Amino acid sequence: MSQQTHLNDVDLDAIVALVGAVEEDGDNGNTVWQADVHWERGFRTRAAVREFAIESDEPSGLGGTDSAPNPVEQVAAALGNCLAVGYVAAFTKRGIAVRELDIAVSGQLDLRPFLGLAPGHAGYSKIEVDVRIDSDADDATLAEVHRDVVATSPVGHSLTNPVELDIRLADR
Amino acid sequence: MSQQTHLNDVDLDAIVALVGAVEEDGDNGNTVWQADVHWERGFRTRAAVREFAIESDEPSGLGGTDSAPNPVEQVAAALGNCLAVGYVAAFTKRGIAVRELDIAVSGQLDLRPFLGLAPGHAGYSKIEVDVRIDSDADDATLAEVHRDVVATSPVGHSLTNPVELDIRLADR
Repeated sequence: MSQQTHLNDVDLDAIVALVGAVEEDGDNGNTVWQADVHWERGFRTRAAVREFAIESDEPSGLGGTDSAPNPVEQVAAALGNCLAVGYVAAFTKRGIAVRELDIAVSGQLDLRPFLGLAPGHAGYSKIEVDVRIDSDADDATLAEVHRDVVATSPVGHSLTNPVELDIRLADR
Repeated sequence: MSQQTHLNDVDLDAIVALVGAVEEDGDNGNTVWQADVHWERGFRTRAAVREFAIESDEPSGLGGTDSAPNPVEQVAAALGNCLAVGYVAAFTKRGIAVRELDIAVSGQLDLRPFLGLAPGHAGYSKIEVDVRIDSDADDATLAEVHRDVVATSPVGHSLTNPVELDIRLADR
């Protein structure tokens, strides 16, 4: 039993309990996620997320000191990390062991809008992702898992759909 | 001179050089950013970004082991980190010293699409950001800086505009 519910080291019991709670009351699915960013110096910042920290800087070519991944790299990492959760969850639900999973994320970004040299979209224009999975799944299951993951990825959907941003400058 | 070009510890010379290179040839503004995600166990992954790593996990309530920020928290952090770069760059360009800068990011996300309990948008529905800056800028300058930053944020625009995602499952 404990073997079964920890396939791929995923705590399936916790997910089943969460699904039950959200089925019982949809409000239990409404979550809030936070990060508190503190400026250190130059382009170096530190985001506090619960008890964790995500450090950030820019490469020297962009005026930073190259001491940490930059914010757009953090987005690329978040996308790959999110898709990995999706694949592992989808395999685990189907009782399939994952042996290896690697995800390469590569995004294209035109710096001109950020630099004020052109108007328009300053973000990623396109992000390409190559997923490599080693498991016992047959091709049909693999294709089904892939469709499910793409259809339900929180970070993926935050990028493919417009998210409402409300950025307020508080009184000093 | 070195004082002037390192206001707020930003290497303004590097940015001026980059702007010059991109003005000379727009292709110099076309950048690619990458992350290589490796699955460790459960929902725990490690994204390699150049020589850096971004670790990721899910809270125990979501079936993880709560050892690192989760992917949607990484997006919240990336947004705050990106906006901080924008504000510091905008102030530095105007010759204004920044004393303190803190950015609180809070995003709302309905877990039901991710859990397969409802169709639709699995990502953030809305992200609220509170920026607190201590500087010598007057109110008009502050408002202008704010407009510029919101209009040119790479991570902000990656969220507010639909980004094309191409997620490919490679042969094992």
